[in-house]
Amino acid sequence: MRIDIEELKNKIKPKLRPIIWRDEDNTLILLDQRKLPFEEVYVELRDPVSTADAIRQMIVRGAPAIGITAAYGMVLAIAHGNTSTLDEALKELARAREVLNAARPTAQNLFWATERMYNRARNAVNNGEARNVKELVEILRREAKAIFDEEFNAELMMGVYGLEKISDGDTILTQCNAGGLATGTGIGTATAPVRVAHALGIRVSVIAPETRPWLQGARLTVYELMADGIPVTLITDTAVGYVMYKGMVNSVMVGADRILRDGHVYNKIGTFKEAVIAHELGIPFYAIAPSSTFDLKSRVEDVRIEERDPDEVRKIRGVPIAPEGVPVFNPVFDVTPPKYVTALITEKGIIYPPFDKNIPKVLGIA
Amino acid sequence: MRIDIEELKNKIKPKLRPIIWRDEDNTLILLDQRKLPFEEVYVELRDPVSTADAIRQMIVRGAPAIGITAAYGMVLAIAHGNTSTLDEALKELARAREVLNAARPTAQNLFWATERMYNRARNAVNNGEARNVKELVEILRREAKAIFDEEFNAELMMGVYGLEKISDGDTILTQCNAGGLATGTGIGTATAPVRVAHALGIRVSVIAPETRPWLQGARLTVYELMADGIPVTLITDTAVGYVMYKGMVNSVMVGADRILRDGHVYNKIGTFKEAVIAHELGIPFYAIAPSSTFDLKSRVEDVRIEERDPDEVRKIRGVPIAPEGVPVFNPVFDVTPPKYVTALITEKGIIYPPFDKNIPKVLGIA
Repeated sequence: MRIDIEELKNKIKPKLRPIIWRDEDNTLILLDQRKLPFEEVYVELRDPVSTADAIRQMIVRGAPAIGITAAYGMVLAIAHGNTSTLDEALKELARAREVLNAARPTAQNLFWATERMYNRARNAVNNGEARNVKELVEILRREAKAIFDEEFNAELMMGVYGLEKISDGDTILTQCNAGGLATGTGIGTATAPVRVAHALGIRVSVIAPETRPWLQGARLTVYELMADGIPVTLITDTAVGYVMYKGMVNSVMVGADRILRDGHVYNKIGTFKEAVIAHELGIPFYAIAPSSTFDLKSRVEDVRIEERDPDEVRKIRGVPIAPEGVPVFNPVFDVTPPKYVTALITEKGIIYPPFDKNIPKVLGIA
Repeated sequence: MRIDIEELKNKIKPKLRPIIWRDEDNTLILLDQRKLPFEEVYVELRDPVSTADAIRQMIVRGAPAIGITAAYGMVLAIAHGNTSTLDEALKELARAREVLNAARPTAQNLFWATERMYNRARNAVNNGEARNVKELVEILRREAKAIFDEEFNAELMMGVYGLEKISDGDTILTQCNAGGLATGTGIGTATAPVRVAHALGIRVSVIAPETRPWLQGARLTVYELMADGIPVTLITDTAVGYVMYKGMVNSVMVGADRILRDGHVYNKIGTFKEAVIAHELGIPFYAIAPSSTFDLKSRVEDVRIEERDPDEVRKIRGVPIAPEGVPVFNPVFDVTPPKYVTALITEKGIIYPPFDKNIPKVLGIA
């Protein structure tokens, strides 16, 4: 199928917009993801301190979404008339960058976005492009929008490449939420091919495992697909194998938190078991992620998998489900060896094994 | 290791006794399993109607436990002086059988137990063994205790045979609760080898997945193993693959709800995925069940897997975790093909492939 990208952009209009910028009054509007799917509450932000707070409190989550939010947080630093000279504006932006960077000290996208915004501002001042603060605000608004658009377009391309792996009537098994809520664009990574297919009138449905302990599948994936009218069925994590055994699944599509040069995929806990069962039953398994997710330097031995608070397992939404004090093992991610990965889908194309050779080739890295 | 069964019986004293009969005042005492692990409440029963209610309300659950409870419910029908002639006693027992059988209309063990108790009473009356109601009560008390003891001894033997598959320091991955709470004896089926090993001073620990939607792993398995001082670690169902990948699991031991002649194992949803991953990683997978669990007549095509209320998935302990009305697929059991089953462990011995040939042989069925 040949796809006109500009035409596709008109067709793919995610109902859910987790990050909205309102030009009229320079306001950043975030969907409060902590309250989903039970309440749809938006918060309005007009300064970098409350934007940092929103990131810290996980009103917004997911690396790309945090990056976009921080970029707009930088605009807010100078958008409301609190500075009169370009010099003051740059100082204000430096302060805002510090405040925002401190919100989630391990979020790579956050640092990258504030750095890019600050550098854009400094250059615009130095080369005379911005002659006053008003012009600088406009330049930064465009830069933040560019960050959003680049993310949106990258996800659209993942969807377009991934479409090759979807046939009319397919059901896709996913895991966790690598959707439009996590990226801030409403499209998502793992959900991009499904959304593109749906926009083009190809019938496709999704099976979403609830994904304990945080239940992102039950709370977020189900919610955002329902919002866009894409058929979705919720299952427990225990039923992941059985739906494949019963022939209910045509392919597995998941996101990724990190992908190594040899094709090892780090993603939400539970991904590994889906991959092994899919492999055993001859169902293709795809990890879908932008090129920024690839870590070509580390090896499996180097990557430590975070273990979190036992109470995340002992309780669900604050309600105890196990004896107090029971020992718990609570890893956040798992790692899927390349043997079980059919292909990796990126904004630059589909990568097949052997990954060592093909990852650098497709990504255009020497 | 040679094991003296009588000596073992003295050593294996499960702390948790879900079904207790008190001879002094003919009272049946049940641990209210609905309240576990948050409250340890016992209910005292003195008549068949309240015993049937207790079964219906799931104060007691698990096929063998229901059978034992119903047997004692039959004793209660005549134990409290409400009948003066043997003729009246038999009528009372027939009524009690009806009341008890209606409590869980698909519970095979329930019908089997009340039938056995009734027949024992009728024979004792007919052949003059019971000369009055008091003697009949004594005969039925012994019969109910025999049902309990047979179950206890069968589980002990599963534990003794299963011990062959446990080495000092092993960690066993299980699923759901096929423990002493489900069987009523405090030993259990899947947990029998672990309990026998522990009683003999062999170091063994268990990893219990929480087992959504009902959380029997988190609520019951963890609780009963902690009560007996057996080290146990709780994980989410998503972490089942990763603990095997990390080398934390020496073998998988689960119960079974039905085993077919060709070795297909029906058990709690989630079992299939453990079996496939164990197979892929070279970890042995054992299903542990008494011979009464074997169905040598049905074929895979004949067995329908029950699907239950979507709200069991949409909510956890009454708390919503997903958007209202989201479509749900909620199968209770799954089926593990014989390819993934290393061996079946029964009270009559260990059964290896080819199962078609060896199941009838070990069970002593033509």
